[in-house]
Amino acid sequence: MSKKVICIISGGMDSALSAMMAKDKGYEIIAVHFNYGQLTEKKEKESFHKIADFLDSTIRYDIDLDFFKSIATSALMDTDIPVPTGGLTSGVPVTYVSFRNGIFISIATALAEKHNAVAIIVGVVEEDSSGYPDCTQDYIEAMQKAINLGTKDSTLISIKTPLIHMNKSQIVREALFLGVPLEYTWSCYKNSDKACGVCDSCRLRLKGFEEAGEKDPIEYEIL
Amino acid sequence: MSKKVICIISGGMDSALSAMMAKDKGYEIIAVHFNYGQLTEKKEKESFHKIADFLDSTIRYDIDLDFFKSIATSALMDTDIPVPTGGLTSGVPVTYVSFRNGIFISIATALAEKHNAVAIIVGVVEEDSSGYPDCTQDYIEAMQKAINLGTKDSTLISIKTPLIHMNKSQIVREALFLGVPLEYTWSCYKNSDKACGVCDSCRLRLKGFEEAGEKDPIEYEIL
Repeated sequence: MSKKVICIISGGMDSALSAMMAKDKGYEIIAVHFNYGQLTEKKEKESFHKIADFLDSTIRYDIDLDFFKSIATSALMDTDIPVPTGGLTSGVPVTYVSFRNGIFISIATALAEKHNAVAIIVGVVEEDSSGYPDCTQDYIEAMQKAINLGTKDSTLISIKTPLIHMNKSQIVREALFLGVPLEYTWSCYKNSDKACGVCDSCRLRLKGFEEAGEKDPIEYEIL
Repeated sequence: MSKKVICIISGGMDSALSAMMAKDKGYEIIAVHFNYGQLTEKKEKESFHKIADFLDSTIRYDIDLDFFKSIATSALMDTDIPVPTGGLTSGVPVTYVSFRNGIFISIATALAEKHNAVAIIVGVVEEDSSGYPDCTQDYIEAMQKAINLGTKDSTLISIKTPLIHMNKSQIVREALFLGVPLEYTWSCYKNSDKACGVCDSCRLRLKGFEEAGEKDPIEYEIL
């Protein structure tokens, strides 16, 4: 029987590739998705299920975090805060959702303990990223230590972040090489039929395809 | 204006005292309670609101974590797993709820960032405790580091655990000294009108009162 891993899958390109890399190594994927009141909830959820189907993820958690809207504000959750479209700037952007990965990884830890999973796979990217503090190597290492200490002695869970030091063009190339169904993924921060092409997430994604010399299979409003 | 702190208040004696100690030092208490499908949810919630009223906690979060029953099993959540009543044993007991404090503290971190609170107050006790791994000094220190790294640079949140090295009789004495309304608190693991007196939590509480030479103001079935 293959070993199980918990894969946090947002519906975007990075988490889909991270999960695919684990699948490629023979792990059984327990797919986990979080609905935290993001404006693109419906699109992300659809992407999650298509990706989880593709990964033969029979154990699957599509978790509603209804409380999130009361604890955090972000341009990703509140239509009153415009999603920036002028290009990436330095500092933590208004799309930051406070300690989101802390909450997600903590819940994934309980699931890993429940299923005796050996790892939690998270598609965080440090370099070519939006600048979120909970997507860094240092943060993940600290969280790893907290998990080691805060769970049973017999529980051994490793947080794996295979993309953390990759740039977006490497991610695109690796995703294409492994056959990740990128046409199923949704990265855009805006809630529309086609990806906007100008939010930070679309810009990073498009830059990755451009630098890799590849064409993104999803549709964009601006292209 | 006084500084704000996030107090995680379960409804039990330890978290009530921890919050009271912060109140006594002049902090404004933002009271936070979690409903995670514990069998004693109704009793704990009542206790929480009485304690929060007593602490003049005008900002208050009574947060439903409906997903918990799908991610964790515990004697505290599942009537099919009997709550042990024979006395404390070594090791992690069946009342353990996987990484519960990890999830609670992560959510409290987002709240602290939202309200510019300077601290998260948690009533964990390491020595005279049920043996949960996520109630230890080492775990809290690791989580502190994860929070420092995983939030904005401008966010400075300190996890405070004033009881972590106290024993139960010290907790009882300090609670009486500060005027904590212990008659409002609920510690029992069982869902009944009166506290059972024989679960680990009741035993620890009663031992504390006995060693302090004081009488517990709440009613017990067995006494």
